[in-house]
Amino acid sequence: MSSKLCVCEAIRDEVKGFSPYTAGKSIDEVKQAYGLDTIIKLASNENPLGTSPRVQDAIKLYADYAFRYGQVGTPNLISAIAQHFHIHEDSIVTGNGSDEVIDMLIRVKATPGKSNIVAFDPCFSMYQVLSNLCAVEFRQAQLKTDFTFDWDALLNLVDDNTSIVFITTPDNPSGYAPPVEEILSLHSKLPESCLLVVDEAYMDFAEDLETYSMLPRLAEYENICVLRTFSKCFGLAGLRLGFGAMHPNLAEYLRRIRAPFSVNVLAEQAGIAVLSDTPFIEETLRVTREGREYLTNELRALDFTVYPSLANFIMVEAPVDGSYLNEELLKRGLIIRPLVKGYNLPKHLRITIGTAHENQVLISALKEILNAE
Amino acid sequence: MSSKLCVCEAIRDEVKGFSPYTAGKSIDEVKQAYGLDTIIKLASNENPLGTSPRVQDAIKLYADYAFRYGQVGTPNLISAIAQHFHIHEDSIVTGNGSDEVIDMLIRVKATPGKSNIVAFDPCFSMYQVLSNLCAVEFRQAQLKTDFTFDWDALLNLVDDNTSIVFITTPDNPSGYAPPVEEILSLHSKLPESCLLVVDEAYMDFAEDLETYSMLPRLAEYENICVLRTFSKCFGLAGLRLGFGAMHPNLAEYLRRIRAPFSVNVLAEQAGIAVLSDTPFIEETLRVTREGREYLTNELRALDFTVYPSLANFIMVEAPVDGSYLNEELLKRGLIIRPLVKGYNLPKHLRITIGTAHENQVLISALKEILNAE
Repeated sequence: MSSKLCVCEAIRDEVKGFSPYTAGKSIDEVKQAYGLDTIIKLASNENPLGTSPRVQDAIKLYADYAFRYGQVGTPNLISAIAQHFHIHEDSIVTGNGSDEVIDMLIRVKATPGKSNIVAFDPCFSMYQVLSNLCAVEFRQAQLKTDFTFDWDALLNLVDDNTSIVFITTPDNPSGYAPPVEEILSLHSKLPESCLLVVDEAYMDFAEDLETYSMLPRLAEYENICVLRTFSKCFGLAGLRLGFGAMHPNLAEYLRRIRAPFSVNVLAEQAGIAVLSDTPFIEETLRVTREGREYLTNELRALDFTVYPSLANFIMVEAPVDGSYLNEELLKRGLIIRPLVKGYNLPKHLRITIGTAHENQVLISALKEILNAE
Repeated sequence: MSSKLCVCEAIRDEVKGFSPYTAGKSIDEVKQAYGLDTIIKLASNENPLGTSPRVQDAIKLYADYAFRYGQVGTPNLISAIAQHFHIHEDSIVTGNGSDEVIDMLIRVKATPGKSNIVAFDPCFSMYQVLSNLCAVEFRQAQLKTDFTFDWDALLNLVDDNTSIVFITTPDNPSGYAPPVEEILSLHSKLPESCLLVVDEAYMDFAEDLETYSMLPRLAEYENICVLRTFSKCFGLAGLRLGFGAMHPNLAEYLRRIRAPFSVNVLAEQAGIAVLSDTPFIEETLRVTREGREYLTNELRALDFTVYPSLANFIMVEAPVDGSYLNEELLKRGLIIRPLVKGYNLPKHLRITIGTAHENQVLISALKEILNAE
């Protein structure tokens, strides 16, 4: 690529400051780099059981339908979501991953050059990327050192031009979730025109939804939106499917601006199929909860600091240098997520809960690495 | 839905003016409304042969992979595209349909509240929707009455703040394509900072690519971008896959702002599979070209005005009222596209080229309707 300035670089000033997304290592890359046949990936919070059998059947059944445009707004999927989560169809907007719903919310609510958006630091990178892309100021309040939420610091950043406040619960990368009463207390202090977006990507894994989830109480509030994804508990990361639940009037504006066919027809059928696969969902939750307890205990026994998590991953601080540990795990075919890039946490590591077997292999490898020191 | 103003309606002023997308009638809707079992849909320019057998195999093979995130930027698909179209990998950006690439281009190039974007009228509705959403002024020059391109009218709207000019060739809904020399002549008159986007969604169906397509000449120009889609000739409308080919420096900026996983993993595999399915592509082109000639001759014999088309559809003016004709066709299970909504052409109809059988059924139905008058 030429380094000399070309006329195609007459681009928006805001865009010049963007950095490319740096992805984690893929299974194929690690296989090739380390000459390995078998890889265990515990890096992207994917489902430990893989793809639901009912989803695989649905995909195969609808494979010959790929040439047809889907129905605008995925009405059949919306019916299935409404039934599963006991919410109104009118309040649901699906997207090509919750990324697209986040983009739609910002574009509907925030005025370029005027509005601001507030979140914690660290937080999901797309909140900032998409705010900046809309020329909307992005403000961040530091989490407390134990990764719990500093509500006062957050509120200090909010003013009359704040169009959205984003909260992730359980949070990524810590796994921390505040009681929903704390979120409602925040909500009561926000300006009326400010939308509170509660991103519950990992909420399925919390044991006590009554205490932690906003979704069941959503209908009582006009300016709260809850985000959910099919990438985690439902095992559809590669198919890109998420939704937002919000007041029907706000949902109507999102429908007006959306690209009409953004959700893939196979993703829609897969979403409908997995919502009906109760055994798969229950087994996913069982494996995740048991694995979370097992890994927490074993890692603590190995002198890791383990942060309490309600999600399908745990964040730890290692008793030795994190980069060294990560490199040693890669050599043994284990991919976890260092948090230097993206989160700026050089000492912390994030580990996705795997199957019982995968978790045991990880612990054995860690014992070997730490004893060899 | 309540009609009283709620606090969730504190939204961006620009968004209040958006109208919901009005989709054409779906196969299921027509079946139900008219009590029919069999429907022929010639309304959405989908592939008359359906989904490629190799694509169906690939989808079934990768169904169990749905739980994994894909690789950022779909590198394997980009290799396949580069090989198939003889263009550099660095110049290609894939998207969740070309809709997403259009959105990325506007967001990279156009400054909210300052830039403007120019296109013909009528044109693909997403150019306007996405410009408005970015708070960018959208200017339109009328096509000539025969639906050919009035370059002078277009150039009259261009000024130093014009960040993008959009051209669709072959054009929708007319099927008209100008010789590529005319497009290059336009390009030579645009300001250097203006990007010319040539949307070649239907170019596969043109017989003489040397005369009409910009893609083979792209490397010679820094500020031209060509859009292609997998929805039409490649038969993947439901999977949402498109790409832009452009100068590598511009492509790099698109990669920086994009949502990293917007392309579905099954869409990526399906795209790779269809590019290798030469028999399917050749048969699609043969059926479309033969059907286009058959329909043109038969419709002219029935006193329709038929516009010459290089695409997989033809635009006609009917010898009787268009709405009446459309309604009579629906009663007989035939869905075509009236152009009142979206294009504001009450007398015109757009007909997708079907299989030989589907085309014959359409002509028989039209004969019956017109004789019964």
